[in-house]
Formats: sequence, C-alpha cells, structure tokens
Amino acid sequence: MSDSRPIGIFDSGIGGLTVARAIRRELPREDLIYFGDTARLPYGTKSEQTVSRYAHQIAQFLLRRDVKVLVVACNTASAVALPALEKSLEIPVLGVIEPGVIGAVKATKTNCIGVIGTVATIESNAYSQALHEQNHVLEVVSVACPLFVPLAEEGLLDGSIAEAIAHRYLDTFGSAGIDTLILGCTHYPYLTPVIEKVVGRRIALVDSGSETAHILTNLLQEKQMTAKDSSEGRLTVLLTDLPRRFREVGARFLGQPLDDIGLVSLAHD
Amino acid sequence: MSDSRPIGIFDSGIGGLTVARAIRRELPREDLIYFGDTARLPYGTKSEQTVSRYAHQIAQFLLRRDVKVLVVACNTASAVALPALEKSLEIPVLGVIEPGVIGAVKATKTNCIGVIGTVATIESNAYSQALHEQNHVLEVVSVACPLFVPLAEEGLLDGSIAEAIAHRYLDTFGSAGIDTLILGCTHYPYLTPVIEKVVGRRIALVDSGSETAHILTNLLQEKQMTAKDSSEGRLTVLLTDLPRRFREVGARFLGQPLDDIGLVSLAHD
Repeated sequence: MSDSRPIGIFDSGIGGLTVARAIRRELPREDLIYFGDTARLPYGTKSEQTVSRYAHQIAQFLLRRDVKVLVVACNTASAVALPALEKSLEIPVLGVIEPGVIGAVKATKTNCIGVIGTVATIESNAYSQALHEQNHVLEVVSVACPLFVPLAEEGLLDGSIAEAIAHRYLDTFGSAGIDTLILGCTHYPYLTPVIEKVVGRRIALVDSGSETAHILTNLLQEKQMTAKDSSEGRLTVLLTDLPRRFREVGARFLGQPLDDIGLVSLAHD
Repeated sequence: MSDSRPIGIFDSGIGGLTVARAIRRELPREDLIYFGDTARLPYGTKSEQTVSRYAHQIAQFLLRRDVKVLVVACNTASAVALPALEKSLEIPVLGVIEPGVIGAVKATKTNCIGVIGTVATIESNAYSQALHEQNHVLEVVSVACPLFVPLAEEGLLDGSIAEAIAHRYLDTFGSAGIDTLILGCTHYPYLTPVIEKVVGRRIALVDSGSETAHILTNLLQEKQMTAKDSSEGRLTVLLTDLPRRFREVGARFLGQPLDDIGLVSLAHD
C-alpha cells in the first residue's frame, strides 16, 4: 500500500521551512506542499480568533490540493487552532506542540522542563497543558522570547546582540533546575548555538520541528500512507506574499535553494 | 468656513499612533479616525503590490466614513502607495515622507542627511528621491534598522540591548558627516534617547510624524477645512485585529489611555 498524495505543511511564514527540512530528511520520497501565509505574518502577536480563522482557511486551501495529511508547522496555530482543525478535517492533522512535548518528556530526568516561544504560544499555555497531560508531576517554566524571531530572520545568530537578548530571556532558567528546554518556535533552532551558550550544554534542547518529523514518519507508516519507494519527493512552496529577502532567508531555513515559489491570493480575509 | 468631517489616519499597526498623538497636540479640535491594520502587520517586510493593495482597501473604507483628508501614517505605505492614492482619491492625501524631507532640508547645514527606516522604506528609495527633488546636491545616507520596531514594541527603549542594536545600525553614520537624521519609521521616536546617545547630540533628529502634523495644520488652514473652534476632538481607533498588549503598547505610543477601540473585518484580502 502506498499513497502518492502530497503532505501539506503550513506556517505563518518561513519558520516552518525548518520543519519541512526535517520532514524531507526523514521522508525524502514524499511530495510536500508548503504554504506560508507571508501576507499576514506574524501570527504570534495576533488574537486567537484571527489565527484560528487563518488556519481554517489555509487548511481548506490545502485540502483542495488533495493533501493526505496536514502538518501545522506553526507553534501559534498549533496552540490555538489544532483541536478545531482535527475535528473539522477528515485527514490526519499534526501540530508541532505534541511532538515537542513527547520528545521533552522522554529527555527529562529531573521532571523539570523549560519552554520558550512567542508571546501567543506561551500565553496559550498549550505546551504546559500538553506536558501535564503526559505527566502531571512535571514542573514547567515558560518564557516568551519575542525578539528571537526578528533576530533569526535578520541572521543575527551569534555575537553580542544575540547573547544579550538570549541572557534577557533565558537567565530565568538558571535557577529553575530544568534539564530540558523545548524550542517552541520554528525559528529557534537557528539560535541553538547562542541558546546553548547561555543555558549551558547540560540542558537538552528539544526541537519541536524535528520531533514532528519523527511522529509524522511513524504515522504514515502505521496508516500505510507513505509514498512509493521509487519516487523522488518534490517540494512546492506557496506563499500569500513574496517578501523581500524570502529566497535568502528561506533557503537558509530550508537548507537548500528555493527555486519554485508560487504566489497564492486567498479569497477572503 | 469650517469642516467638521473627521481626519482619517492609517497605519499597518500601532506605530502611527505617534503621528495621531502629534496631530492631536496641534489640532485638538479635530475628530480623528485611526485605522490600524493589525491583522496584517507588519507592512515593512511585504512586497510593494501587497502593501499597495492594502492601502487602497483601507482608503476606501475611510472614505465611506466621510474623512476630509487621509494621512498615511505609515512610512512603508507612504513610500510605495502614495502617488497612486493621490491619483485615485478626491480628498487631500498626506504621507509622512514629504513632511520629514521638508523638515530635514530645513534643518541641515552640511547638506548631508541620514535616513533610517524599515527594509521596505529604505529599499524603496522614497526618502532619498524626495530629498533630491528638494535639493539635488544633498548627500543622503540610508540605513535599514529592522530590529528597531520589535525593540520599541517590546518597550526595550534603553539599556545594553538597545544600545548594542543601535550601534550596529547607526555606527555607519559616524564617518558619514551627516548633521541631520530622519526617523523614517513611526516607531522610532520612542528610541530617540538611545539613538541620540549613539549618534551624538550634534545630529538633529527629524521625526516625520511631528513634521506631518505641521504640514496637515497648514493644509487644513489654507483650504479652510479646520473643525469649529468650539468643538472638542474625538479619537476613534479601528483595528483589523485586537493584538495582545495593544492597549498597553498603544497607550504608550499615543500618550493617553486607549478606551474606545473598534474591530473591523475587511471584506477581501
């Protein structure tokens, strides 16, 4: 049994390309359609209603493209819209939060886990709720790091500015006793070196995007929905706007050149 | 002669509230309708076509509210959409770029002017073109400062992080010989102390927003379109999304509490 339909991935912008990259690494035979809502990014500062409305609209768009599974590669959209998407769609839906949580619960020995993300993700409490569902004795310390996304998009991945900002957000964890830190935003894997430098290498960093690729692989195998072994996967990138520097920043996030980009105009705001 | 219709002001988000504040200070009798396109901000990283489309849509919305003049309190939208708006609308349209340029040309003695703004504003060359139209012997040095907006919105107005970022962008001006620096983004007036600290007090800072309020005052007086002396101006704030922290950050930018906020859903994306 095989299923040649594409995997749909969506994000508010380019951050989710780090998830697409992890999925391509694990599932090189799969066709991927990546949808970046670049005309309306960022989601991290917007209200739940608005983010939820955008997520449903994009899910419908990808369903018309006949995707076999939907990966919500955006922590904010995963935090606020996942249950509703799971309920309304007939295909499997995978967010980035639960995979990150499962990875962190496996990694921790002290049962004390840190979470960093956008303001919207942290205020939603989605990570701490999901962590407590896995293990109710866990201690969870969450910190919003709103300047990390602009830092990563600017390519300011190290140096004095990145370090000063990382200290501002992460010094809280110094006395918190965590041994595991969830990178709860798809942009953050690019800041791994400076984050490690500030929190110390003894704290395990869990990248929700990579964990999502593992879970997706298991899901497709279990449901016998993987593509044929012989095929070579294609990546199609669709955006609602072609931002300045998208090719440059996007290629860095994806780890390969971005050749084929389509522009999409969604019918309604 | 008087004209009691409101003044329409629009911006991608909350930055334009600094312009609304300057206008209220100069024209306390005028009713203002402030439109912040918070569901689709920021404009500074989006393409010209997209920003222009949004600007036209919002202009039409404000026209239906019977505004007597339209102030485009967004540097990016002023840079890419102003000529087209002026052409298609029958009311006067005022951007923030020309007022900033006029203020800077008055202020400079060395004929060497610096401009800072978002990536979109700087890449549009709108400031340098407008400066050269005023005086073709001017030397203009422009620098994009993409981290300044998130800094201002985070309220990180001084301290080591703000200074390190300011040095990164502004040290270029050290050897450039400018005596005047245009703050070509409505968020930047909040960073005035750290900008002054880095470039030195001998460089005059020109705030496009305040200059726009002067020009608007002259325009309304010339055209006999000011409101009645007896009336007390009202401020109506309309947003396409109510972002987290809007009241807090918005009140700081406006300089007074934000009580009356309306939510608007635009018909088409």
